[in-house]
Amino acid sequence: MLSRRDNKYITEIGPGTPMGNLFRRYWLPAMLAAELPEADCPPVRLKLLDEDLVAFRTTSGRPAVLDTWCPHRNANLFWGRNEEDGLRCVYHGWKFDADGACVDMPNEPPRSRFAEKIKQPAYQAVDAGGMIWVYMGPPELSPAIPELEWTLVPESQRNVSKRIQACNWLQNLEGEVDSSHANFLHANLGPDRRPIRNDERDEDLHPVFSILETDYGLAICARRDVGRDQYYWRITPFMLPSYTIIPGIFGGSYTFTGAVPRDATTTIGITATWNTEHDIPKRPFVEVDENYFPLQNKANDYLIDRQAQKTVSFTGIRGVRVQDMAVQEDQRGPISDRTTEHLGSSDTGVIATRRRLLRQAQALEKGIQPSQPSTPTAYRVRSMAVVADRSVPWQELMHQHMPISVIGR
Amino acid sequence: MLSRRDNKYITEIGPGTPMGNLFRRYWLPAMLAAELPEADCPPVRLKLLDEDLVAFRTTSGRPAVLDTWCPHRNANLFWGRNEEDGLRCVYHGWKFDADGACVDMPNEPPRSRFAEKIKQPAYQAVDAGGMIWVYMGPPELSPAIPELEWTLVPESQRNVSKRIQACNWLQNLEGEVDSSHANFLHANLGPDRRPIRNDERDEDLHPVFSILETDYGLAICARRDVGRDQYYWRITPFMLPSYTIIPGIFGGSYTFTGAVPRDATTTIGITATWNTEHDIPKRPFVEVDENYFPLQNKANDYLIDRQAQKTVSFTGIRGVRVQDMAVQEDQRGPISDRTTEHLGSSDTGVIATRRRLLRQAQALEKGIQPSQPSTPTAYRVRSMAVVADRSVPWQELMHQHMPISVIGR
Amino acid sequence: MLSRRDNKYITEIGPGTPMGNLFRRYWLPAMLAAELPEADCPPVRLKLLDEDLVAFRTTSGRPAVLDTWCPHRNANLFWGRNEEDGLRCVYHGWKFDADGACVDMPNEPPRSRFAEKIKQPAYQAVDAGGMIWVYMGPPELSPAIPELEWTLVPESQRNVSKRIQACNWLQNLEGEVDSSHANFLHANLGPDRRPIRNDERDEDLHPVFSILETDYGLAICARRDVGRDQYYWRITPFMLPSYTIIPGIFGGSYTFTGAVPRDATTTIGITATWNTEHDIPKRPFVEVDENYFPLQNKANDYLIDRQAQKTVSFTGIRGVRVQDMAVQEDQRGPISDRTTEHLGSSDTGVIATRRRLLRQAQALEKGIQPSQPSTPTAYRVRSMAVVADRSVPWQELMHQHMPISVIGR
Repeated sequence: MLSRRDNKYITEIGPGTPMGNLFRRYWLPAMLAAELPEADCPPVRLKLLDEDLVAFRTTSGRPAVLDTWCPHRNANLFWGRNEEDGLRCVYHGWKFDADGACVDMPNEPPRSRFAEKIKQPAYQAVDAGGMIWVYMGPPELSPAIPELEWTLVPESQRNVSKRIQACNWLQNLEGEVDSSHANFLHANLGPDRRPIRNDERDEDLHPVFSILETDYGLAICARRDVGRDQYYWRITPFMLPSYTIIPGIFGGSYTFTGAVPRDATTTIGITATWNTEHDIPKRPFVEVDENYFPLQNKANDYLIDRQAQKTVSFTGIRGVRVQDMAVQEDQRGPISDRTTEHLGSSDTGVIATRRRLLRQAQALEKGIQPSQPSTPTAYRVRSMAVVADRSVPWQELMHQHMPISVIGR
Repeated sequence: MLSRRDNKYITEIGPGTPMGNLFRRYWLPAMLAAELPEADCPPVRLKLLDEDLVAFRTTSGRPAVLDTWCPHRNANLFWGRNEEDGLRCVYHGWKFDADGACVDMPNEPPRSRFAEKIKQPAYQAVDAGGMIWVYMGPPELSPAIPELEWTLVPESQRNVSKRIQACNWLQNLEGEVDSSHANFLHANLGPDRRPIRNDERDEDLHPVFSILETDYGLAICARRDVGRDQYYWRITPFMLPSYTIIPGIFGGSYTFTGAVPRDATTTIGITATWNTEHDIPKRPFVEVDENYFPLQNKANDYLIDRQAQKTVSFTGIRGVRVQDMAVQEDQRGPISDRTTEHLGSSDTGVIATRRRLLRQAQALEKGIQPSQPSTPTAYRVRSMAVVADRSVPWQELMHQHMPISVIGR
Repeated sequence: MLSRRDNKYITEIGPGTPMGNLFRRYWLPAMLAAELPEADCPPVRLKLLDEDLVAFRTTSGRPAVLDTWCPHRNANLFWGRNEEDGLRCVYHGWKFDADGACVDMPNEPPRSRFAEKIKQPAYQAVDAGGMIWVYMGPPELSPAIPELEWTLVPESQRNVSKRIQACNWLQNLEGEVDSSHANFLHANLGPDRRPIRNDERDEDLHPVFSILETDYGLAICARRDVGRDQYYWRITPFMLPSYTIIPGIFGGSYTFTGAVPRDATTTIGITATWNTEHDIPKRPFVEVDENYFPLQNKANDYLIDRQAQKTVSFTGIRGVRVQDMAVQEDQRGPISDRTTEHLGSSDTGVIATRRRLLRQAQALEKGIQPSQPSTPTAYRVRSMAVVADRSVPWQELMHQHMPISVIGR
């Protein structure tokens, strides 16, 4: 559990909040690159860290992100015209470039120097891995883009998707670093209608957790018994500020998740699956509408099928991601009240993640710059799911089974 | 009228409020038994006295009501699996029995005693009269179930229904104890298009009210002139905390109403009609959707037909209950501002009911236990509508015309 | 820009606010006369200056406006019966006449004098120019109805329309007094896909503004260069409290606009076009539903067509009024935060209008009665769009080109 104060501290991400300041020191995958499909395409609304923004792609193809409210008289630049390396407000024709400079002010006299005084808030934005990444912190402190493996493999070997999730970002992240829930929430029912995992190695339902502090954040290690001589190890990295990697169970593709704060009660949920060897199909993890809101949602009870819950799956809800959403989107509301929790040994990963985030934000408040990532290559990490003799230490397994090949861009 | 302070005091029913504490000392008819149709059926959401609950029926058929938020990490038990005398959370598999004990915690080590420390808030629930009754007060002070006649007659002789009404419970109750409004709100228009009552005895539009304090609450007596020698007496019991009985006009079936607080601005409206002699048809009093929200509602102006209002009925709104809803659901909003009222002699029943409730809640604040009902049989009451010579005192009529036969269960 | 305090001061119009008090000293065009089509027609909801009202037409045909909450127990008089020169509440039959007197109280004893004590708030209402005008100030200070030309011409020579706009009234008004935006927001694209005005005289995009204080409010004068020898003058009157007149570009019909405050975040937008010479067609300026909410609205992005924005019009939004709504309804929300603005020389009219309103409301706070209009004929004003030699002073042009013929009623 958290105190009321810490719960507020860790969940709030608006301008000026400590956790908001921390998030503003990292590159955030906020949009699909496909949302801005070409140079000079229509502008798109973007809500990020509780700020109202507008995104567009310039004539040169560069993604651009501006505060959406025109500094003249607050008209919404979303209605704007994306023309010749700048976005022009439709109300009085003021035009801003990708850096927020006012490059045209046609309703003022020709010799007016008023435009020079106008600077619209603009945030750095870049394309990487089929996503548009945004940095909202002090420009001079902007780090390099994290070298996540999925952003470096050929486009055909990854599948990225986005959904708007109706809860605070931390509920989403906690689900990702909580290896224990998969045995239940995502379980199918066997012939005897009891929950089983497809993967029999998971039958030990109460893993023992260990945590390793790392450069990128944490390595969260869940150990389950396999027979009398072996362990099933599953290691999930938590990468600052709110990213994880989940291993493919059958040694297949990896899955990256990002819980990107949209505002206090909604999250941009990013999922990227990739394979280092072969192409993978493009398909959405969750069916969404044109605004990325899931079709199975709280308003329709995620289309739960109570009969299926008796006979087929633990939840009766179709789709692993939707099962997560069902529990995450209403944990005593969209911002969970963590003062009422009762955490057990299976919550070790959740607890460690919260602590790391709190510590990091508190340090930044004191002026200590985030040490993560020390270098962009710190994000060149994978996850691991492996069975090994009990005698092998997990640190050794990790170094053996999580080698990150350095892939040139 | 009420002072602003009293208005707040009498309408608020959440945990810890004085009126909420009073309601928590009575059994409340909160659900239709049919909502939990069989043992191990799917769990159902229940909002009651501003608490988020989940209801289910155990393997033995017993109704159970728990706080809906899993004590582990606030997942909603509504998604839970109703299995073998307990409800299992889908997030991590914690299982609770009907008394709130945590009877399984599969994600913790086998020898863990953590489950013993976990107790989920659970409320007593029983079946009676086709309803599920819930008691939310101190378990050791739980009274017997009120022996309302409609809960004791054979199932074929009663008709119970439920609707969610979009206003504070007190507005609903005030309508029930206000005998005066029937002459207007529920009137049909005669051939001359003037309001008339089907029952000609009602043509005296300004009844004289008397109030009798009783064991169960109040007997509210409305007297109307019939010719020069007779009175038409109509007696409506107000039974604590928020129940009434309305007489059948033609000596027919009685109608019980319950204004059960759901939260500050919505009410579970219960209507039960019964006949002591013969079977009665099962039909809803109001057409509702699958969540018990009325199909005629404020959003569609209750389907008022202004032409019908000119020619057929006083309101132009179809359905007696819907007519009530139209005026009750928006009395200067869903929580009426009673500081602006101008009460007259026809409001005697309303005034007495408020006073009784305020007095009772204030007494409980001082530690005086509710004296009502002294016994469950106190609720064995009917209502009365009778014409008699002016010389007969109403107390005598009441004893003569409201005999409650003691029916064995 | 405005200070936070002034922004609050100027936008709030509820009972007791300074700006609300100012608005209550003027006749407000609140409804189409057609909303109350005949004597004894059904009552209609009316929200005006943040008050909940009900409007009806008496048996004699007089429009009447009452507070909508029955003084008895707050039932909504909207459900009421409009019968024989009064509105009767359906709950208990109390009846009120057009002046708010309680003329019948059938649920009280015949000799009761309770009704005499009851006075429902009632506001003066009159028909003029196809609208119903309402005055909500002190009855003894009620001015004469403003003699706006469009209310005086034959019915066939005007076209009035109403829409509910989803923003504070001031955003609507600012758009009307801001002559500069027409070159952009309402521009069509030429063959070269650059914005042009149909009227070539508008090609000077940065008008020079002058302001003349007048009896009715302000004359806002925008001067644009035409060649080397001429000016294009465009004069828009701002009439207190929130009315304007826009000239027809080709010397055609004039357009009156009224930004009538409905509540803090919605406005009754009135548009009236008239011609002094000939009949004009009746057609809506904006397509609305049966409650006057526009069909193109924020929820559907005003049906913006991004392809059309590239090729046909500056906004890609169909309809001049809808283009206005798109920018006005969300200027950093429905109540613009004017502390963030950067105003230029083209905002002279906006600035002057705000100042005039602030000054007027502040004077009223000090007990100085509004001097505008000194007489109802002060509103007999037109607007002007004319090209003239540079040597002609605009005051002279105004007197020459804005002659108001005194039309007898």
